Amino acid sequence: MRQLLARGLHVAMQTTHRMFTKWSAPKQSLFKELKFTFNEAFFHDDPLRPFKDQSKSRKLMLGIQAVFPILEWGRRYKLSMFKGDLIAGLTIASLCIPQDIAYAKLANIDPQFGLYSSFVPPLVYALMGSSRDIAIGPVAVVSLLLGSLLQEEIDPKNKYEYQRLAFTATFFAGATQFLLGFFRLGFLIDFLSHAAIVGFMAGAAITISLQQLKGLLGIKKFTKKSDIVSVMRSVWTNVNHGWNWQTIMIGVTFLVFLLVTKYIVNHIERGINPPSLNEIHFTGSYMMKGLKIGVVAGMVALTEAVAIGRTFAAMKDYHLDGNKEMVALGTMNIVGSMTSCYVATGSFSRSAVNYMAGCNTAVSNIVMSCVVLLTLEVITPLFKYTPSAILASIIISAVVGLFDYEAMILIWKIDKFDFLACMGAFFGVVFISVEMGLLIAVAISFAKILLQVTRPRTAVLGRIPRTTVYRNIQQYPEATKVPGVLIVRVDSAIYFSNSNYIRERILRLLNDEEEQLKENSQPRIQYLIVELSPVTDIDTSGIHALEDLYKSLQKRDIKLVLANPGQVVLDKLHASDFANTVGDDKIFLTVGDAVMTLAPKMEP
Amino acid sequence: MRQLLARGLHVAMQTTHRMFTKWSAPKQSLFKELKFTFNEAFFHDDPLRPFKDQSKSRKLMLGIQAVFPILEWGRRYKLSMFKGDLIAGLTIASLCIPQDIAYAKLANIDPQFGLYSSFVPPLVYALMGSSRDIAIGPVAVVSLLLGSLLQEEIDPKNKYEYQRLAFTATFFAGATQFLLGFFRLGFLIDFLSHAAIVGFMAGAAITISLQQLKGLLGIKKFTKKSDIVSVMRSVWTNVNHGWNWQTIMIGVTFLVFLLVTKYIVNHIERGINPPSLNEIHFTGSYMMKGLKIGVVAGMVALTEAVAIGRTFAAMKDYHLDGNKEMVALGTMNIVGSMTSCYVATGSFSRSAVNYMAGCNTAVSNIVMSCVVLLTLEVITPLFKYTPSAILASIIISAVVGLFDYEAMILIWKIDKFDFLACMGAFFGVVFISVEMGLLIAVAISFAKILLQVTRPRTAVLGRIPRTTVYRNIQQYPEATKVPGVLIVRVDSAIYFSNSNYIRERILRLLNDEEEQLKENSQPRIQYLIVELSPVTDIDTSGIHALEDLYKSLQKRDIKLVLANPGQVVLDKLHASDFANTVGDDKIFLTVGDAVMTLAPKMEP
Repeated sequence: MRQLLARGLHVAMQTTHRMFTKWSAPKQSLFKELKFTFNEAFFHDDPLRPFKDQSKSRKLMLGIQAVFPILEWGRRYKLSMFKGDLIAGLTIASLCIPQDIAYAKLANIDPQFGLYSSFVPPLVYALMGSSRDIAIGPVAVVSLLLGSLLQEEIDPKNKYEYQRLAFTATFFAGATQFLLGFFRLGFLIDFLSHAAIVGFMAGAAITISLQQLKGLLGIKKFTKKSDIVSVMRSVWTNVNHGWNWQTIMIGVTFLVFLLVTKYIVNHIERGINPPSLNEIHFTGSYMMKGLKIGVVAGMVALTEAVAIGRTFAAMKDYHLDGNKEMVALGTMNIVGSMTSCYVATGSFSRSAVNYMAGCNTAVSNIVMSCVVLLTLEVITPLFKYTPSAILASIIISAVVGLFDYEAMILIWKIDKFDFLACMGAFFGVVFISVEMGLLIAVAISFAKILLQVTRPRTAVLGRIPRTTVYRNIQQYPEATKVPGVLIVRVDSAIYFSNSNYIRERILRLLNDEEEQLKENSQPRIQYLIVELSPVTDIDTSGIHALEDLYKSLQKRDIKLVLANPGQVVLDKLHASDFANTVGDDKIFLTVGDAVMTLAPKMEP
Repeated sequence: MRQLLARGLHVAMQTTHRMFTKWSAPKQSLFKELKFTFNEAFFHDDPLRPFKDQSKSRKLMLGIQAVFPILEWGRRYKLSMFKGDLIAGLTIASLCIPQDIAYAKLANIDPQFGLYSSFVPPLVYALMGSSRDIAIGPVAVVSLLLGSLLQEEIDPKNKYEYQRLAFTATFFAGATQFLLGFFRLGFLIDFLSHAAIVGFMAGAAITISLQQLKGLLGIKKFTKKSDIVSVMRSVWTNVNHGWNWQTIMIGVTFLVFLLVTKYIVNHIERGINPPSLNEIHFTGSYMMKGLKIGVVAGMVALTEAVAIGRTFAAMKDYHLDGNKEMVALGTMNIVGSMTSCYVATGSFSRSAVNYMAGCNTAVSNIVMSCVVLLTLEVITPLFKYTPSAILASIIISAVVGLFDYEAMILIWKIDKFDFLACMGAFFGVVFISVEMGLLIAVAISFAKILLQVTRPRTAVLGRIPRTTVYRNIQQYPEATKVPGVLIVRVDSAIYFSNSNYIRERILRLLNDEEEQLKENSQPRIQYLIVELSPVTDIDTSGIHALEDLYKSLQKRDIKLVLANPGQVVLDKLHASDFANTVGDDKIFLTVGDAVMTLAPKMEP
């Protein structure tokens, strides 16, 4: 009965199929097709939509609102919202002040610059940004990255020049972010895969924590390198002055001493941000160095901010224009670089606290900014003496959350290749350096794309007994091959980057099959059915690969059969005349149809 | 009745579906999965297969045969085959001698070097190559490219130094080819798309032909640039010494004179290739320049040779190992660079003639090589005086076939974006320079990959009336939407490079739909069905994108439904626990099942 049902539907479907193939899609003109491709590449979110059919003055108004979203949400702002924003703003301010001081140390700059960076950038972001939950300011990973890149160029002891280069790098970080957003190239940061970021962040957390051993153990001479081997050797040589009772006694006394006394950090300057525009290098070799460091730091900062923005936008379900965000973040860092700030971005830990404390809009950032202003003007002397050990523990507690072992376990479960990328980035940061970890992360991400593009999956299909369903025989051991027929499914669009591989792969599967059949003296293959349902598109090279496959098969007296090509593929098969070469009677709607028609004796 | 049939099969399939989901594929270990990925990336053609289960001495023998295929096919060589090879060899020799002299001119080197390059490289290739039809020697495009790259570094009048750099570039071209093959990175040349090559070749044909105007018109002062504007200006200024009767008379007389008299080409040295090993720069700045030029010329030469090899292998249905071919071509050019040859590769025109003349094996190359040897030793004086005009016409007639307008028309028909790549490369070569054309070709090829990877297609599906088939409503205007349900198909694997785009795209389609429904005051969307059949794989970022989508939908009180996830995707949905979040009752085998279960009133 089920066979009858199946056959009935097959016939019905075949009729429909004929109807479909006769109906051909209206040909798109070159201009239309290119415009569509271009729009999808750069304007897929249709940012100009609200501007349609509006008067000129209204368009101008909308334009200004698009650049400064505060004009739009500010009008709808209610006092009831302010309560949440105030509480959230005060909470993240109390968190950011000690963090700012600590992170400035990671970047090898004076603590007040950390506070400066929590004053101006959040204000600029509040005017231009669209995220309601992000908390802007210096963050641990970017500070560490910036610090390690800068000290390769200039010794941090050369304070003034080091600061100048830091501002230069911040300027170019902002410029990079701005330009990426302005030219709508934001999708480029998607090339850093989630797995690679998880590994990189975890590695950075370990590295940052290890470096705090200096503060925690009160070590004076400490390595400048960030890898675990150098750091542990530094710790070891400092601890291991002869491993005897005296040393241990001194060590214990020292630890007690550490917990009781206070180590002086650098003096914090009182007052708000001084201007720093004329400290930025706009010419010369330092400009190039600043540019290089700025591009790297800017991209990493962007990755963090955009990831945070997206996460919270999804949780509260509002739309976030990635490219507009980049313009806002870029402007914020450009302005920051001119007012003595270093690279600021969205902080994972503070944004989460901001969200939990019930923030409603970017006003919480303004509140935080005001508190930091007060701190700079009034309370700074209170922070004058902060123990290194306390700063170190602040940093460790802030970065510990970056080591997201649960995400790592999930990545392991979902995709082993992703896990490799994650571990590569992690061990790169921990054992070599922050830059190397980043490089490994990018390289593995690209290798994955390369593999995706050049080595698509193929599968040999077999029939699930008593059905007309054909599935991968490696995943369904009960699936049986149809005698005299080899069914191969191609699991990707066929483009120039993979067309040769696909052709060779299919031929190799055929050779393997024929060899095996010969060994068991079974009937040889008469039909090769290529199941094309996952093939969403094909280009000229793809058609040529199919033609080559057809020629190879012809020499062996095997018929090429195509099953279930999509409309796009079908149109191209017809346009290239390859459909005629193969023969319209060799193109079927489903594998079941093809087997039923070509090898009817094999029907179950 | 048809409804009944369809419903019957649906139930049957759903039962099967449950059976499938319960049965889970055996988990692959990390090592196994990585090994598989690595093998598919580098050893997908299983080159070590014949070595399996063989004795040691047999393995050694097979190894030597793998490097020198002549040992294998040589033993099976019969006298009957020699007839075809002899005729083909003599034919291509008669073609190659004038071409070699002409092409050497394109590379700005003395004519004997062209002949040298048709003597040693074909012999080396005959020992190591596996193509039976390729004709080895200098080719027009590579000669032109090499010439224009070399003369940017050294003036060709500085003969000795120019030659040394040419040999250096040839050495590194060979080394590049060898290493790409040895490390099995041959797939890298697949990144130059067929369309880009067609455009590049056509542009080169135009450029080469235009430059022959110098010879044809007997112009002494000619531009060194290769773009059409410079060349036509050169021609114009030389012709346009006042546009009057006298000039035209002189012009006509000159043309007649050209056709009657002979211009002396450079003297051709008698004798075979002198050694040139110690002329290669292995140190210093010229080594770097040679390396740069060599890598570019080597890659272009490789593209041509591999394309030819593949075409003829498909026509005669024999297997060609791309990576082994590259090792053979590389060795041939390395040996060539030490014996006064410049870059040789497979020639389109001569290979076609070779095939037509009935060649059977690479013996035809050996025959050609012997004829060239004879020419060098004996007949060279006959070529001593060859008219420039004749050389020019030889070149033009040889390259005219490279302008493959039929291929261009086909590309236009099949894929508009491919056509853009083709035209970009073509106009780049014609209007700017050969290198620029090449750069444009590579850039457009990469842009296409970028688009493929970051901007996959999505489609809104509707039901074809009176069936349970759901198709793209843009391609099937008769397809109707199901009230209260939005069905979106994702046409690609979901990876980190496109996961955010896919999520945003789906949400935008949903917003568009809801807006439209509101306008027409129709019932709002209750279910979003994502059809996953073309989604062959998903990674961690992809799962996160689905999770974010799920959260956004939850806020709007819309249920997320997944249809037809493949086994790989299903396993990952379960591993990440996202299948539980969505609910197993929201995952269906087909869109039809989902609609039938969730919106049964809508059944036709």
